[in-house]
Amino acid sequence: MPILDLSPGDQTLTLTGDVTLAEVYAALPPGLYPPFAPVELPGGVGGLVSRGGFGQTFFFGAEVLGVALRTRSGRVVRAGGRTVKNVQGYDLTRPFVGSFGALGEALELTLRLRPGLSARHVAGPGTLAQLPAHAPRFAWEQEGELHLWHFGHAREVEALTGELLARPGARIVEGLGDLSPLFPGGLGVGEDGPARDRRFGWVPGGATPPVPALFERLAASL
Amino acid sequence: MPILDLSPGDQTLTLTGDVTLAEVYAALPPGLYPPFAPVELPGGVGGLVSRGGFGQTFFFGAEVLGVALRTRSGRVVRAGGRTVKNVQGYDLTRPFVGSFGALGEALELTLRLRPGLSARHVAGPGTLAQLPAHAPRFAWEQEGELHLWHFGHAREVEALTGELLARPGARIVEGLGDLSPLFPGGLGVGEDGPARDRRFGWVPGGATPPVPALFERLAASL
Repeated sequence: MPILDLSPGDQTLTLTGDVTLAEVYAALPPGLYPPFAPVELPGGVGGLVSRGGFGQTFFFGAEVLGVALRTRSGRVVRAGGRTVKNVQGYDLTRPFVGSFGALGEALELTLRLRPGLSARHVAGPGTLAQLPAHAPRFAWEQEGELHLWHFGHAREVEALTGELLARPGARIVEGLGDLSPLFPGGLGVGEDGPARDRRFGWVPGGATPPVPALFERLAASL
Repeated sequence: MPILDLSPGDQTLTLTGDVTLAEVYAALPPGLYPPFAPVELPGGVGGLVSRGGFGQTFFFGAEVLGVALRTRSGRVVRAGGRTVKNVQGYDLTRPFVGSFGALGEALELTLRLRPGLSARHVAGPGTLAQLPAHAPRFAWEQEGELHLWHFGHAREVEALTGELLARPGARIVEGLGDLSPLFPGGLGVGEDGPARDRRFGWVPGGATPPVPALFERLAASL
């Protein structure tokens, strides 16, 4: 479960799929952020990428620069690379991200890191439906509360999370949260579970959206 | 060659692949921009998406929300959709973008539009290598000059294009440029041609990067 390469200069992080989200946060220097909120989830970084992220409001696929995956036929395939420049067409990284394991298992991943001078995690009463168009980087519902997490310039962080924080009952969340106990058996897609983001409702267990027939053929070809 | 749907509210544009870049600019209301600079290129929007864009400094794949494509076996396949929310995993849109036709031909495309209060196209002496890390949305070299194109808040447009404009010999470019005459036979990938962006050198003709064997298998499966 090692972190294979951390390059603050290139702002990239290469690791095996089983590294946990907490291990990434522990390894990063101050002011550099991965494409996930400081919340532990089942399945490590490999699971997160396989599900297409959690709670983000941006295009998660662009933050995964490269992947080495074991396909269903047992072949080990590399796509993308360790730098932003490696995205040059013939892109097998993107269909892997969010494919819920249909194309195979991530052995190694390279993530883009982004800088931020300030960061804040706010939880309070509210729903995703009330979010303004210019949303924080991360927004999700968890056990009846709205969670917002943003990093960037201090003024931007204040602008995007301040309104929620001003609501009665809202609070700043410090440190790393742990959602794993809410999802015994893994993190699956479904309704009426303990969490929801803009893409999916999330439930305990391994339920995935149905795989389209065409994608199934693609997966079988690799 | 129709524009099938233009939704300023949803900020999306659906069109057939043969619509030209100029036709898109002519159709858009003021203050909404497509994911390409105001420069005509061979092959229309379908060609542009097949090549993975031109001159952009952002992740172009995220701006293509959906595609209907005719695969090499003649099947018509739809991936993604007309809204940002349709990106739900099992993503066949992303591998199509920038695959230089290897997966098939785009019959219909949905692009994301983005708002901007101000815009400026500057050309002048310089190279891509000298660009700062926080670059304009579009930057390319063309016939020995550096071109920058940005839209957004007026202050941001000034900050990102002002330095080039201050160089001796630099100028503001008005209206729509036309690079088509520089690329007889189409726009191909190669060295020492009339244009270059952060991804490729661009030359006349239809040269494409070599297709990896794995991607070839994937294309044959569709």
